[in-house]
Amino acid sequence: MPLIVQKYGGTSVGSTERIMAVAKKIILAKSQGNDVIVVVSAMSGETNRLVALAKEISDPPNAREFDVLLSTGEQVTISLLSMALEAQGCPARSYTGGQVRILTDSTHNKARILDIDNQRIRTDLEQGKVVVVAGFQGVDDNANITTLGRGGSDTTAVALAAALKADECQIYTDVDGVYTTDPRVVSNARRLEQICFEEMLEMASLGSKVLQIRSVEFASKYNVPLRVLSSFEDGPGTLITIENNKMEKALISGIAFNRDEAKLTLLGVEDRPGIAAHILAPIAEANVEVDMIIQNKSADNTTDFTFTVHRNDYAKALNILHDLTPELGVREILGDDRIVKISLVGVGMRSHAGIASTMFKTLADEGINIQMISTSEIKISVIVDEKYLELGVRTLHAAFDLAMVRTV
Amino acid sequence: MPLIVQKYGGTSVGSTERIMAVAKKIILAKSQGNDVIVVVSAMSGETNRLVALAKEISDPPNAREFDVLLSTGEQVTISLLSMALEAQGCPARSYTGGQVRILTDSTHNKARILDIDNQRIRTDLEQGKVVVVAGFQGVDDNANITTLGRGGSDTTAVALAAALKADECQIYTDVDGVYTTDPRVVSNARRLEQICFEEMLEMASLGSKVLQIRSVEFASKYNVPLRVLSSFEDGPGTLITIENNKMEKALISGIAFNRDEAKLTLLGVEDRPGIAAHILAPIAEANVEVDMIIQNKSADNTTDFTFTVHRNDYAKALNILHDLTPELGVREILGDDRIVKISLVGVGMRSHAGIASTMFKTLADEGINIQMISTSEIKISVIVDEKYLELGVRTLHAAFDLAMVRTV
Repeated sequence: MPLIVQKYGGTSVGSTERIMAVAKKIILAKSQGNDVIVVVSAMSGETNRLVALAKEISDPPNAREFDVLLSTGEQVTISLLSMALEAQGCPARSYTGGQVRILTDSTHNKARILDIDNQRIRTDLEQGKVVVVAGFQGVDDNANITTLGRGGSDTTAVALAAALKADECQIYTDVDGVYTTDPRVVSNARRLEQICFEEMLEMASLGSKVLQIRSVEFASKYNVPLRVLSSFEDGPGTLITIENNKMEKALISGIAFNRDEAKLTLLGVEDRPGIAAHILAPIAEANVEVDMIIQNKSADNTTDFTFTVHRNDYAKALNILHDLTPELGVREILGDDRIVKISLVGVGMRSHAGIASTMFKTLADEGINIQMISTSEIKISVIVDEKYLELGVRTLHAAFDLAMVRTV
Repeated sequence: MPLIVQKYGGTSVGSTERIMAVAKKIILAKSQGNDVIVVVSAMSGETNRLVALAKEISDPPNAREFDVLLSTGEQVTISLLSMALEAQGCPARSYTGGQVRILTDSTHNKARILDIDNQRIRTDLEQGKVVVVAGFQGVDDNANITTLGRGGSDTTAVALAAALKADECQIYTDVDGVYTTDPRVVSNARRLEQICFEEMLEMASLGSKVLQIRSVEFASKYNVPLRVLSSFEDGPGTLITIENNKMEKALISGIAFNRDEAKLTLLGVEDRPGIAAHILAPIAEANVEVDMIIQNKSADNTTDFTFTVHRNDYAKALNILHDLTPELGVREILGDDRIVKISLVGVGMRSHAGIASTMFKTLADEGINIQMISTSEIKISVIVDEKYLELGVRTLHAAFDLAMVRTV
């Protein structure tokens, strides 16, 4: 019998009414001949309520106890959903992370899953029960409750699917799939039938917030077929798999973008080995994440060094650079926090030259100046002035015919 | 170092402010040289919120899942209290029933504690930590979450005190001790310094709702000194112990009463062996609890049979009796749901004749007719018309000098 892991997020289980609707979806999947494991998040709003309680007491709260607190959110959902299933005549059984058990390391608030003991789940499935597991949580090897951090429920679902060799891991969310780009920016953006893990990772990291990166990495590592679907409407969603011959032969799968970028440039840095590390070490120490990095040698034996950070970290990064100026002999520091990143993503571009030049020409034709370029095997990213975001995305979406369905 | 178990109920931890006040009380006890284990209930209102959620889904909800749901209430409190302690510089560690672990049988919604594994608690105490345990919950030997039913947090506290051989188990509540009778009825009712378990059991079962019967039974069985105190004001509260030479030598410790009584009488029942069982079996099958029972032989070889039930069960019991009438050959069925029970309680009456006659005379002098009498070694209960409740209690309180403190 095929085994499906279904994951429902906070909005999908945001009220008892919605929980009952989710129960119906599960019963349907079961009646179609599947064994079903369900992973759920806390009801929407619940985690915020708990965080607010904690902060009334202590900010930041003790990390261990914060996990004890937060994990109750999912525990409420698993019990209510199991009640709903039982009430509709479908045998069900809920498990907390500690009961399953989902063993993690001891890093409270952002633990990593080490192992899953699936004996109880297998027994329940054999008895025809639906198994409902609390997402986002686990226990360390001293039975202390841990949580996995943001997006943890997706990770739980994928980890369970991997541990039980499920045929598919279905992530139910409030969008009906992965699109060629954000439909709010490009009205004829198209839902992708299928996308490969590498592309999905690039899409996710570039701001398509459908799935959390960690869960996609996990699914990729253990080769778990992932499907993104809507909890509110029926439809096939988007299947995320390793590259295979069913894959649409598109050069480009989608266009991702990120509005929250800021750029810092050091002009006239002394050009000697280790200079990049010297500049970036204090930035990293301040927990500022650096995205794109470009270094260009100048004619005068100095170098220009540019990198991008999240817009929220712009002021912090700028201060750090100013402190560094004396030792680096920098001529000038430039900064710009009104920039955005636009990226073409597609495994097809591996074997196709000319994608980059088409991209650059398309943008140039619209008078959009490219400030930085960064490339990987399956993506090309450019930094442009933020005022060009919509124009750039729409123009590229049209130039690469992304609204059209291509089949093999 | 003395070991104290403190239990705080829902009102005492009803807000983050109150939780912080409780943390201060705990830190004070610790600074006075005690090791401290704390047991907490769900924040007041939380359990009702969870019950309402469950009933929106299914009524009655699945018993196993209901326990998974309800147990989150206490889990929220243990985490918040531990955070508050940590934030005030007091090392603390929370445990759910499953983590401690409090092993129960598998009777969901009203499980009984079988065993407590206190290894982790001992280690924490040795390291100077305050241990905060979720009341009301445990796990069965398959790690399914169970709850202990009403008053379960008191039971948890007493069980922990017994398992760890604590020097005292302190139950913090919204009253400052056990009184000779309800101060709302008798204004000069007096707080008792000490009372023995047997008396406390009678007081509790007769409607003094300070402590749950099960926790007192438990404390008595394992000889755990119990103390009832207020969470809101300072004071010594009331100590509940086995009878000892420190005990006040009062004949009567207190007057309990119960407003929720109803009485049923069968007149002219055929007097043959097994008739009482024949009458009460269908009552018991209908889950109606019977309190007092009186049977009086009449001259004509029939018998009159009277018993009391909770007022809520009156109509149900009456219907059952009417169905029985044909087979029992009953002459008449009488009923009265406007009656109350007043009880004198005191270990002192064991060795003193004359208490009963003083009681009956006192009531007679006020013109209060006694409808039923029931006695045990340490209590005398009478059933009277409900209109005499306050008068009866006040008169008896005065007659037995209960407002006066007596010392050895």
